[in-house]
Amino acid sequence: MSGYREESLHRIFQSSFVRRKGILGPGSDCAQLTPPKGRHLLQTVDQVIAGVHLEVDATPKAYARKLLRRTLSDLAAVGATPWTVSWTLALPPDWTATKIRQLAKAFLKEAEHFDVPVVGGDCSLSQHVVLTCTALGLDNGRVPGRDGARVGDIVLVTGKLGDAVNSGAHLLPQPRLKEGRRLVEQYKPHAMMDLSDGLARDLPRILQASEVGAEIELTALPLGDSLSANQAGFESAVGEGEDYELLIILSPLQAKLALQDRILRKVSVTKIGTIIEGSKLRWLENGRAKRMQAKGWEHQWG
Amino acid sequence: MSGYREESLHRIFQSSFVRRKGILGPGSDCAQLTPPKGRHLLQTVDQVIAGVHLEVDATPKAYARKLLRRTLSDLAAVGATPWTVSWTLALPPDWTATKIRQLAKAFLKEAEHFDVPVVGGDCSLSQHVVLTCTALGLDNGRVPGRDGARVGDIVLVTGKLGDAVNSGAHLLPQPRLKEGRRLVEQYKPHAMMDLSDGLARDLPRILQASEVGAEIELTALPLGDSLSANQAGFESAVGEGEDYELLIILSPLQAKLALQDRILRKVSVTKIGTIIEGSKLRWLENGRAKRMQAKGWEHQWG
Repeated sequence: MSGYREESLHRIFQSSFVRRKGILGPGSDCAQLTPPKGRHLLQTVDQVIAGVHLEVDATPKAYARKLLRRTLSDLAAVGATPWTVSWTLALPPDWTATKIRQLAKAFLKEAEHFDVPVVGGDCSLSQHVVLTCTALGLDNGRVPGRDGARVGDIVLVTGKLGDAVNSGAHLLPQPRLKEGRRLVEQYKPHAMMDLSDGLARDLPRILQASEVGAEIELTALPLGDSLSANQAGFESAVGEGEDYELLIILSPLQAKLALQDRILRKVSVTKIGTIIEGSKLRWLENGRAKRMQAKGWEHQWG
Repeated sequence: MSGYREESLHRIFQSSFVRRKGILGPGSDCAQLTPPKGRHLLQTVDQVIAGVHLEVDATPKAYARKLLRRTLSDLAAVGATPWTVSWTLALPPDWTATKIRQLAKAFLKEAEHFDVPVVGGDCSLSQHVVLTCTALGLDNGRVPGRDGARVGDIVLVTGKLGDAVNSGAHLLPQPRLKEGRRLVEQYKPHAMMDLSDGLARDLPRILQASEVGAEIELTALPLGDSLSANQAGFESAVGEGEDYELLIILSPLQAKLALQDRILRKVSVTKIGTIIEGSKLRWLENGRAKRMQAKGWEHQWG
């Protein structure tokens, strides 16, 4: 096939999407959205970039799946239910019709899996692959921010930490939508976020916003299956990004209840530490202070 | 300054934005939005890419302004009022702190100019510059699609066509927000869109969706100041992209009224043709059929 044009792409985009009342699109300049009464909208945006978030030669399917799942993980972090997504594709000229179609179909299929309509998109030429996805979610109760952690609160995480990259799980992150929603509906998190840059980078964001400190017990961390309970294992668990697990701050009473919750226990929820006075993040090993090297992931320019 | 980190960038983003009731953000995983009752939301997304939409070495300010204005132009095309914007920045590692700050400040300032809050964003490393912007608008009446043009309707455009690139106007497109809104509120457009890829590419999109044809009188086209009323001038006027003027399809009666409208006449509104039976776009010069080469702008892969 010689040359694959934008117009053909538009047809793929319009060919299939989850249909839902109050949502018109894609198809023209704008999607038309009518939010259900009495619900707040939560909006987030994320990117997947060749050579940064995925290998340059990752399959179209891998690009599509990671893009949508990373984005939905931000909705999980506020306990919201996905309502719509839209996306942008910046693709190099050597991408073939087959490859572009695979990407579009994989994205639409993945959206169907998460039962969320794709309401729009934009595709443009580029020197390398940059994909973005914007999601709107519907709230399921008070949205936990990052600034509500109080001294005495309990720090918990879902799932396991630290071997997403090694195990390949980072290719197919599992947004904790069900768990985020359950937490917001039942346990009023004082703060919550998803772990994308590693505990050592992400937890301080809550601490700073809440003006508190925290003590984390390394031996309590739910280590990824490939990790051992030694220094190297702990460094990975707190320093590696891409876990996409929930980091949750609950009052002691709510934490006790949440640890027994049947829905939450399916993915495992673990108490890993406590909110303390001050502003520092302190690592403990069996209760004794421990220095850690891990800094977590951060983009850097200039 | 050695190294500019994501965290510092977040602080810039949070430092200034238009505040409005019902909108919380940016700052954490999601922005929280509470749409005004009884209004529909219109959503659109657009991109600005180095080497495609702007020269690679364009200033940060040029990037920011074009990005926001291109995106808002899609809201103008449906007569909506901008309500929120969010954006993504994929920037190469050699972008300095100063440059990134200039980009962020220019975008925030431009958003302020259009009185729209910036509710979120994401910044990532990349090999070259890819910026995207998602806008939400509030409807001002029935949203014109592309599929409502009827035989006998009148084709109109705002402003002038064809020399946006030559004149440099493409760097600072003027989204026709006021005019789009006025048209939707007063003249019930049967179809409307913004001209980003040239009349020769964009009008067929309406014709196809509406299953009609059109006759366009070349001598009636409002030519850009640098163009002459000859073959070359006509080719530019129908073939060059980036005008960001409105292409409007009105009933004959509404067209007559709109042509006399005080608000619309400020930017000039011109009748350029008629919707006819069939599916073809026919060019006329003084009423006689004329062949045109111009195809308009389209991305192409593979």
